[in-house]
Amino acid sequence: MANSKYEYVKSFEQPDLLLPNTWIVIRIDGRGFHKFSDKYAFKKPNDRRALDLMNAAAERVLVELPDVVVAYGISDEYSFVLHRSCTLFERRSSKLVTTIVSMFSAYYVHLWPSFFPDSPLTFPLPGFDGRVVQYPTVQNLRDYMSWRQVDCHINNLYNTTFWTLIQQGGMDAKAAEAELAGTLAADKNEILFSRFGMNYNNEPDIYKKGSIVFRGYELVEATTSSPVLNEEALTAPEMALSKTQAEKERKARQKAKIVVQHVDFIKDDFWEQRPWIVSNRPGKIKPEP
Amino acid sequence: MANSKYEYVKSFEQPDLLLPNTWIVIRIDGRGFHKFSDKYAFKKPNDRRALDLMNAAAERVLVELPDVVVAYGISDEYSFVLHRSCTLFERRSSKLVTTIVSMFSAYYVHLWPSFFPDSPLTFPLPGFDGRVVQYPTVQNLRDYMSWRQVDCHINNLYNTTFWTLIQQGGMDAKAAEAELAGTLAADKNEILFSRFGMNYNNEPDIYKKGSIVFRGYELVEATTSSPVLNEEALTAPEMALSKTQAEKERKARQKAKIVVQHVDFIKDDFWEQRPWIVSNRPGKIKPEP
Amino acid sequence: MANSKYEYVKSFEQPDLLLPNTWIVIRIDGRGFHKFSDKYAFKKPNDRRALDLMNAAAERVLVELPDVVVAYGISDEYSFVLHRSCTLFERRSSKLVTTIVSMFSAYYVHLWPSFFPDSPLTFPLPGFDGRVVQYPTVQNLRDYMSWRQVDCHINNLYNTTFWTLIQQGGMDAKAAEAELAGTLAADKNEILFSRFGMNYNNEPDIYKKGSIVFRGYELVEATTSSPVLNEEALTAPEMALSKTQAEKERKARQKAKIVVQHVDFIKDDFWEQRPWIVSNRPGKIKPEP
Amino acid sequence: MANSKYEYVKSFEQPDLLLPNTWIVIRIDGRGFHKFSDKYAFKKPNDRRALDLMNAAAERVLVELPDVVVAYGISDEYSFVLHRSCTLFERRSSKLVTTIVSMFSAYYVHLWPSFFPDSPLTFPLPGFDGRVVQYPTVQNLRDYMSWRQVDCHINNLYNTTFWTLIQQGGMDAKAAEAELAGTLAADKNEILFSRFGMNYNNEPDIYKKGSIVFRGYELVEATTSSPVLNEEALTAPEMALSKTQAEKERKARQKAKIVVQHVDFIKDDFWEQRPWIVSNRPGKIKPEP
Repeated sequence: MANSKYEYVKSFEQPDLLLPNTWIVIRIDGRGFHKFSDKYAFKKPNDRRALDLMNAAAERVLVELPDVVVAYGISDEYSFVLHRSCTLFERRSSKLVTTIVSMFSAYYVHLWPSFFPDSPLTFPLPGFDGRVVQYPTVQNLRDYMSWRQVDCHINNLYNTTFWTLIQQGGMDAKAAEAELAGTLAADKNEILFSRFGMNYNNEPDIYKKGSIVFRGYELVEATTSSPVLNEEALTAPEMALSKTQAEKERKARQKAKIVVQHVDFIKDDFWEQRPWIVSNRPGKIKPEP
Repeated sequence: MANSKYEYVKSFEQPDLLLPNTWIVIRIDGRGFHKFSDKYAFKKPNDRRALDLMNAAAERVLVELPDVVVAYGISDEYSFVLHRSCTLFERRSSKLVTTIVSMFSAYYVHLWPSFFPDSPLTFPLPGFDGRVVQYPTVQNLRDYMSWRQVDCHINNLYNTTFWTLIQQGGMDAKAAEAELAGTLAADKNEILFSRFGMNYNNEPDIYKKGSIVFRGYELVEATTSSPVLNEEALTAPEMALSKTQAEKERKARQKAKIVVQHVDFIKDDFWEQRPWIVSNRPGKIKPEP
Repeated sequence: MANSKYEYVKSFEQPDLLLPNTWIVIRIDGRGFHKFSDKYAFKKPNDRRALDLMNAAAERVLVELPDVVVAYGISDEYSFVLHRSCTLFERRSSKLVTTIVSMFSAYYVHLWPSFFPDSPLTFPLPGFDGRVVQYPTVQNLRDYMSWRQVDCHINNLYNTTFWTLIQQGGMDAKAAEAELAGTLAADKNEILFSRFGMNYNNEPDIYKKGSIVFRGYELVEATTSSPVLNEEALTAPEMALSKTQAEKERKARQKAKIVVQHVDFIKDDFWEQRPWIVSNRPGKIKPEP
Repeated sequence: MANSKYEYVKSFEQPDLLLPNTWIVIRIDGRGFHKFSDKYAFKKPNDRRALDLMNAAAERVLVELPDVVVAYGISDEYSFVLHRSCTLFERRSSKLVTTIVSMFSAYYVHLWPSFFPDSPLTFPLPGFDGRVVQYPTVQNLRDYMSWRQVDCHINNLYNTTFWTLIQQGGMDAKAAEAELAGTLAADKNEILFSRFGMNYNNEPDIYKKGSIVFRGYELVEATTSSPVLNEEALTAPEMALSKTQAEKERKARQKAKIVVQHVDFIKDDFWEQRPWIVSNRPGKIKPEP
């Protein structure tokens, strides 16, 4: 019984290779997490256990996929950045996005009991969808990251004020929403401070800044001729890496410790002190304290 | 702090809509399952627990996604078929494939302890990747399905003989491989029968035929003018379904019981007796026995 | 001087293969033909010379590309249909569309003096752009064709009435537009008939029906079990054609005379009498009269 | 008669937007030009009339499409580069490539009699196909251009030697091919010089270097901090151009004179002296001599 009669169907599979030399962003989003967070009674406006679980799952993605140079998470979304020189799976779009979504989903479900020991998961299980976006330049990539971090800030300030009006101010959702309609950031800060004595700046950074995940080498001092600002200087040699060298660096990246921080990365400092994120060349391992 | 300065990055997301009116096949494959099956000591040539776990995860996909009309699984792969009239997620390719991969991965990990109670999962967790293929006609779709079922047969006959030579014949892998080089199906049947007294036909159907998953309505008698063989007859009205009608049928599908069978679907009978798979119109609910 | 240092740039070219077994429609449109038709004083509402030139260019496309089974033109647009079994250029989308656009443009410019002997072309020259659309079923393809022919009718009835109001009714464009706002087809017919004694039905078919171009075999009598209505019956054998047979039929098609007609093809008759268009199997050559 | 029943077919048209902020290269190639050049007895190894005709057609493309910043032609191929900031036709791939192919084909056919006054075109007419490639960085784009110019050199040296062996050396094609098998550039130079007294360096630049077409502003002195080498410095402001400013610059480009040169552009000098090609900001108009 030969298979050849049916094998023609393989030709219907269409290639979906991403353009070489672009930054690949894979963003995953929780499916129906509004309902899901109600079901498991997530604390509002932020549930620390839920965020820690997201971060733990994201860490595993960086551990298992050295091609991911940095990731950023807020709420029920996470963005994973693959370096422009990445050739994993020949840059097949569906293979890259499904691998990351699968890995993240598996760890999220598996690690759930560690973070929510009193709320066992029941059907339907939580899930995530994913999408792929390409960015041709470092500037475009950084603007993507900044877009997400600004979004984190805007959403968190709104949600913090909204839930404070409800939880401490005794409003219902409708009244709180009406109260906030048309307000600016300064207005919301003022509401929190004058009515509830809350200084928004003192809120935990994980809520205000989100969580950025990367390999934790030693920081370097930023210089004016930082490679981060000079696209060509870094892409040309990167593309020319020999296979041996690339494999060696891949292994070096696997040894680095994955860290999660809650810091501003809109300004240049973050990137200049951590040039390995954009260059993808392993940094100096931090000495143990 | 306005977000508009960075929002331009959204325009880099490229549409990936699948062509309307094609059958959508989403096939997922275990990542590194050769190593994974060794790690958890899967029985060779087939581990019934592992297959049952795959089927349980697939069932959940059909329960949660009524757009999936049929699914077929062998070994560590599963193919999910979305009807040609499907408009879920506007037919966005990455959204469809990641949703199914995420769901499958989550259930696989979550249900693992029910099937492997003595082998708790350790890192790295199992995962799946996924791909999307479109088929323009029922014939192409059925040929795809037949291709997978023939593959199941070929692989299982080979693996059964290979492992019998080792487990009962005392050969090592290399010798068994050499023994089977160039053999035809009849040769393998003969080896099993004459040397080990094993009739391959008596092997369990789940190994020989794989597992097909669908909604279990009452079978209908096949007729010569079967709609399965008349593409136009069924696609035109399907596309013309009103939104109300479509929603109603979607709900009807959600009520149907999902069944898993291990039967031949290369021949016409399977499809003619279950016209709802190709037509996507709910069948008659089976009376309780 | 080796070229290898730069040859990596070839890898940036991305595949753009169309899905197998779909009908390929390539539609071209005149670029800036509103202005162009003013420059060369095209007659309104229809310029017979301009349409004949379009048809002459389209005929050449069918002569040179036997994979095109039928084409349809109205105004400054032309749709070329490649059979679902077409494998020309491995179904590379950009190669298919540019070849047809290039060919059409070249003949349009080259043949211009034969149709407009008194109006030599000056810069900028006329040009066309093109797009590719795939249709999975004969029904979808026929609906595409019907869509264009209905458009032809709607536009021509409007334009005929509009220009008659101006040319014979002495209105200016603004007044004519206002007169026609909100009118139905029957109203326009009535305006033409009662005010100008013109029976729209007597207008030339080339204006009312557009121009359909195909290979002119002997008509066959339509039957109820027409293959046109039975998708599967015709696609399966077509896909199974041997290379030799395919090449033989390709040559047979090259011998057929290309004809241009101005007839209705929304009804079944047109397709049933000319089964070779959908089947792509050469018909019977008409005996010379 | 409403069109709505058929209008659903429009939804089958799939978007094909190119990624923002990439360099777009559209390369066209003569279809069957080997046969075509025989038919019109092109001179070997190079026919100056044929190259001048290609260049004249390419010039018209730059005149009519200000988004094209530079073009490069060798033999029967031409590459047109659209700036990374280009938004023409919303960056729709098929629209961009067909517009350029149509324009080039029309001018090639129309201008033919000016360059080949004694060889009127007969059917089949010459034609071109086209493809689209995207490059994320200036370096990638320059490497593409260098790839083509190196190819020009390699091919021309081979062809010049090959045809000299035939035309002056009395060999037939087979013997000439055998003679050249395995030779390096130096060997070919030596054959030309020692056997035929021909110094390859003295061959016309149009054959050795190909033809580069661009807007002819005043050259600027190259500096070390050339924007050509600093990707970020130029892409950020470019993307931020207001619509008014962009339109103004578009018009300025339309006023510039298009020039055709036969010079090396593999080295940095060419790009540094003509920064407007990469920056897309109009240069200084040359004073009339």
